[in-house]
Amino acid sequence: MVRVGVIGASGYAGGELLRILLRHGKAELAYATSRRYAGEYLFRVHPNLRGMSDLQFVGNDFSKVSDKADLVFTALPHGESFKVMPQIVAAGVKIVDLSADFRLSDPGDYDRWYGFKHPVPDLLDRFVYSIPELNRDQIRGATLASSPGCMAITSILAMAPLFKQKDVPIDRKHVVVDAKIASSGSGGKPSLSTHFSERYGVVRPYKPAGHRHTAEIEQEMGKLAGDKITVSMSAHAINMVRGILSTCHVFYEGDLQNSNVWRMYRAMYNNEPFIRMVKDKQGPFRLPDPKVVIGSNFCDVGFEIDEWGHRVVAIGAIDNLLKGAAGNAVQVMNLMLGLDERQGIDVAPLHPV
Amino acid sequence: MVRVGVIGASGYAGGELLRILLRHGKAELAYATSRRYAGEYLFRVHPNLRGMSDLQFVGNDFSKVSDKADLVFTALPHGESFKVMPQIVAAGVKIVDLSADFRLSDPGDYDRWYGFKHPVPDLLDRFVYSIPELNRDQIRGATLASSPGCMAITSILAMAPLFKQKDVPIDRKHVVVDAKIASSGSGGKPSLSTHFSERYGVVRPYKPAGHRHTAEIEQEMGKLAGDKITVSMSAHAINMVRGILSTCHVFYEGDLQNSNVWRMYRAMYNNEPFIRMVKDKQGPFRLPDPKVVIGSNFCDVGFEIDEWGHRVVAIGAIDNLLKGAAGNAVQVMNLMLGLDERQGIDVAPLHPV
Amino acid sequence: MVRVGVIGASGYAGGELLRILLRHGKAELAYATSRRYAGEYLFRVHPNLRGMSDLQFVGNDFSKVSDKADLVFTALPHGESFKVMPQIVAAGVKIVDLSADFRLSDPGDYDRWYGFKHPVPDLLDRFVYSIPELNRDQIRGATLASSPGCMAITSILAMAPLFKQKDVPIDRKHVVVDAKIASSGSGGKPSLSTHFSERYGVVRPYKPAGHRHTAEIEQEMGKLAGDKITVSMSAHAINMVRGILSTCHVFYEGDLQNSNVWRMYRAMYNNEPFIRMVKDKQGPFRLPDPKVVIGSNFCDVGFEIDEWGHRVVAIGAIDNLLKGAAGNAVQVMNLMLGLDERQGIDVAPLHPV
Amino acid sequence: MVRVGVIGASGYAGGELLRILLRHGKAELAYATSRRYAGEYLFRVHPNLRGMSDLQFVGNDFSKVSDKADLVFTALPHGESFKVMPQIVAAGVKIVDLSADFRLSDPGDYDRWYGFKHPVPDLLDRFVYSIPELNRDQIRGATLASSPGCMAITSILAMAPLFKQKDVPIDRKHVVVDAKIASSGSGGKPSLSTHFSERYGVVRPYKPAGHRHTAEIEQEMGKLAGDKITVSMSAHAINMVRGILSTCHVFYEGDLQNSNVWRMYRAMYNNEPFIRMVKDKQGPFRLPDPKVVIGSNFCDVGFEIDEWGHRVVAIGAIDNLLKGAAGNAVQVMNLMLGLDERQGIDVAPLHPV
Repeated sequence: MVRVGVIGASGYAGGELLRILLRHGKAELAYATSRRYAGEYLFRVHPNLRGMSDLQFVGNDFSKVSDKADLVFTALPHGESFKVMPQIVAAGVKIVDLSADFRLSDPGDYDRWYGFKHPVPDLLDRFVYSIPELNRDQIRGATLASSPGCMAITSILAMAPLFKQKDVPIDRKHVVVDAKIASSGSGGKPSLSTHFSERYGVVRPYKPAGHRHTAEIEQEMGKLAGDKITVSMSAHAINMVRGILSTCHVFYEGDLQNSNVWRMYRAMYNNEPFIRMVKDKQGPFRLPDPKVVIGSNFCDVGFEIDEWGHRVVAIGAIDNLLKGAAGNAVQVMNLMLGLDERQGIDVAPLHPV
Repeated sequence: MVRVGVIGASGYAGGELLRILLRHGKAELAYATSRRYAGEYLFRVHPNLRGMSDLQFVGNDFSKVSDKADLVFTALPHGESFKVMPQIVAAGVKIVDLSADFRLSDPGDYDRWYGFKHPVPDLLDRFVYSIPELNRDQIRGATLASSPGCMAITSILAMAPLFKQKDVPIDRKHVVVDAKIASSGSGGKPSLSTHFSERYGVVRPYKPAGHRHTAEIEQEMGKLAGDKITVSMSAHAINMVRGILSTCHVFYEGDLQNSNVWRMYRAMYNNEPFIRMVKDKQGPFRLPDPKVVIGSNFCDVGFEIDEWGHRVVAIGAIDNLLKGAAGNAVQVMNLMLGLDERQGIDVAPLHPV
Repeated sequence: MVRVGVIGASGYAGGELLRILLRHGKAELAYATSRRYAGEYLFRVHPNLRGMSDLQFVGNDFSKVSDKADLVFTALPHGESFKVMPQIVAAGVKIVDLSADFRLSDPGDYDRWYGFKHPVPDLLDRFVYSIPELNRDQIRGATLASSPGCMAITSILAMAPLFKQKDVPIDRKHVVVDAKIASSGSGGKPSLSTHFSERYGVVRPYKPAGHRHTAEIEQEMGKLAGDKITVSMSAHAINMVRGILSTCHVFYEGDLQNSNVWRMYRAMYNNEPFIRMVKDKQGPFRLPDPKVVIGSNFCDVGFEIDEWGHRVVAIGAIDNLLKGAAGNAVQVMNLMLGLDERQGIDVAPLHPV
Repeated sequence: MVRVGVIGASGYAGGELLRILLRHGKAELAYATSRRYAGEYLFRVHPNLRGMSDLQFVGNDFSKVSDKADLVFTALPHGESFKVMPQIVAAGVKIVDLSADFRLSDPGDYDRWYGFKHPVPDLLDRFVYSIPELNRDQIRGATLASSPGCMAITSILAMAPLFKQKDVPIDRKHVVVDAKIASSGSGGKPSLSTHFSERYGVVRPYKPAGHRHTAEIEQEMGKLAGDKITVSMSAHAINMVRGILSTCHVFYEGDLQNSNVWRMYRAMYNNEPFIRMVKDKQGPFRLPDPKVVIGSNFCDVGFEIDEWGHRVVAIGAIDNLLKGAAGNAVQVMNLMLGLDERQGIDVAPLHPV
């Protein structure tokens, strides 16, 4: 059994890590930290874990992280992770970071998208931006991994085959990513905008422009395409607790057949354990829909060609707390530790739910 | 009191017409037809109307429509309306049609978008496509009016000021309309895809390309711009019963200031009784959200400029059964009858709901 | 036009009063107070009111309430109302209070159910507990009125005919009231338990015993029955924003026919403008359901006889912000002012919503 | 690996059985039958199972059930199960039946509660009504097991300790069970009453009296109490897809302390792997709530004493498709096969969801 710690375990992504690790099979939860809830049982904060563990949260003492664990997840809020990371890195453990603090390799992108000067820019290069479907081998050899943003990973997985191929010219200037996200993506802290009566039933365009995940998408799509990509992203909060749908409007030039695009996607995803291609002729779930991935690490991917507008609509759907956070992070951990990539997360979604 | 009939009154749009007309003040509901429910009390089909009226549905006998009413609404399904329209037109009453059958002036568009040859193409020219905010004077003089599609009106009202102005060049080829729509938009007929357990919590990209409302948007935006516009529309069904949000991604060239765009919208909407500009600095409802228009005829309109991608995100929100159907139709009726445009629909939205 | 003020207008009940008063027809909104939001436009707090009024909140200065208004609504939180009431009463205006502070006529009930000693017990007798269906004439002559609790009025209206009649013996010791209530009933203040991700999808038995509305129900049912009634109430928060269903399990002795019970309800409610009897043989809405009263002042009432257990299941459904708060309060105001009881609230519910 | 068949696998309970069995670990899914979908891939009917299995449904040929499986689940609709059961029983396999057809041991109860004469009354005695927390040893030795109704098991587990004990007199005539149930409990067949727009947001008292699960509750509570119990049950459909909350209002005589009741529950449930006692002083989840059991086989149980009304409010919460159907059935299978009771169902609930 590998011993694993979770730093910042009181948030929703942290809670999901705990849930997975308590039944992982090859890794065991060594400790879970929380400044605010130190001394409390896990289930006081994560009521689903009642009866699953007697563990209590411990405080954020990082001096002994390596004594007690072989790998740690850091699930701290953005802007908190980089404060403690040098100390944890120095301890010599393997790390999977779930925050945004080590996702962008160019320090200038933090100025541009996050509005601050990155305090430890030298660490950026040492973290591997980790989407197994894109860079599995690199992750296997990594000591420090950064797990992507939830809307970023959905959008990247939806569009990657289009930008990776070289046969059909893709418009790099008018890539529209229209994302719909559930409430858990904005965390567990109450506020007026998350107050049930105000939040229920909304279709809230909370970030029509300038969403920070844009930077990750541009970074990774740019790598795949070998060219600069400009992404026009808009994020909407909708009436559900889990799930993301990312609708990516991608324009092409010339001619494009359904079978061409199928081939691009098959080439990239055919053997992927957590990608399901969804493109059916009938039934209510003919294209990706977060409803049928809830509780699983799947990213469902599909597309439709719009000949009228010379557009491919590439669509991705995930459970934002799994493939969008804890599930992908555990998949990355499994790779880093040489375990079966599916260990602990090979779970069917719930339906209906 | 003007006498008004509703033909095809058992659907959701029909029910909403009845609800408005029963308390309109200047018009009175003369009759409501339904082939299927003839002889039934209105409240057997529309349970909200219990205690509001003793009227019963009558069958679809169009021979005497003009004897009993001065104006009729036709709220029949698409493809049914054009079958009965010649007979109703011949009766000489004023008509407001809520179906798609008389919205497009070019008969060829029915081949292209609806897949059939229009059986009465000569009638198309006689119907006025009616959005008061665009062509109020024309509506005032109309005998035959066609009320727009729910996603079309939302998108048109969101983008119209951008295409009407001539100062800033707008990209006419990459106009993306990403619409999110509630369940009532797909009507009252049960099916597997509308079965609660299957429909609840979805973000279903049910029509990523080829949505028929595209044709209306292109037709009307083209008129405003004086040029051909290609619209790339995708429609998503989401977890609510009423409401539409249309996110319109519009690319521009050169420079664009917030104050410029404000001016375009103010110029067009400043005195509109049913348009509210929403663009605030704080609060949960800084931009349009269908949640706060439910129960009203408002279309909330707002925008945000994305300098990074040279994009204006133009956003519209409505109650699909009101400004998207019955509410706009009554507004059109008021104009056609020379009544105060707000009569019977000057109602505040519910909040929270 | 009667001038009306709303004291404590920033909460949900206050907002609903504003919404009604802005289109009442015979009364006009003179002012709306809010300590916290003084100087803000109404629509900053109640986003639905955007475009409906240019009024701003004023502070809570009660010295001049009577100069500016002929009647005031007090919609302050429980425990705040009795602090300011003596001053407002002294001003000589008519008052409709929406708080719990003047609902119970026995001061001892405040000790027992609310846990405090009532500071102005002498005022209790001067307030009329106001349910028009029970004591319309008394309300007509009242100067000071107290509008009932939302779950209380639903339960009372559901059961009243059973306790008012003397023909069939009703068990007074095992009256179970099982209430299901929407989120808006708990107000607009954010907290962990109202955080969307935690509140969505719950069936939370938040007050299985000791709910304060029990006292009102016992008080009013006791008056009707001329006997002491013990009510066993449990309150559940469920997954919606508006609405209450109260399921009242009432045991009887001897024999009871459907037609008997019909007669009891008809006798009491036959001419009531805001009571609808709902007891159908078919359709999805055979019995009361809050879904089909949303947006209206209706209380839907129905029942079913369970011969097996010698039980009548009496059921009431309302929109908690209307018949459960602002709607009933305006109905009471109309009576106090000699207006048509339906003025400003004769509105059909929305459906579907 | 034990080979297991699922007969009637296209419904929601059947789908949940498939989901569990595909990852059970000690049992393997040998076949899944469906008359309607024979030849279709499982994921065409259960979209969550895409990528989880290549199996196709087979038709309902029962002649060879025992050749291919050591145990079969029958998940047919009520009234279908008893038609095929004699043939399956004759095949000699172990059977866990999820229908209502073999739950009641007195054939007369089928006349009374289901309105038909049971066609194979001799089989009734051979089926063990199976709630492991009540009769684990009997289940271990069983060949034929009947898994209880979803609302029955919730209510029975909530109240059992009160009726099992003999110290405090419990009222046997006024036991009120007020159940709130999600949509998946009514199956996957579309109808007007399950049409999303009509079903969303309801609190529908769809069976205020005469619910068939009453019979099971009376049967089992009667056994525990050694006396006849009359249960007054009302069932409500509410706005969610999974979950049941059963609020049981139980009256007592004399005095009852919190610690007494704790002792009763602890005595019965202390070592139960799938019962969690929930009775906290703080937090949003102080008492059972289906929200925090979704995806798991837990039944959360709690209570509150109402001294005013001499009432214990006993509360149970489950995921209706798990502890209310497939989860309990697999737990029963595990016992019948001598496996670890938790095998394949030892899963944490999702939160938030």
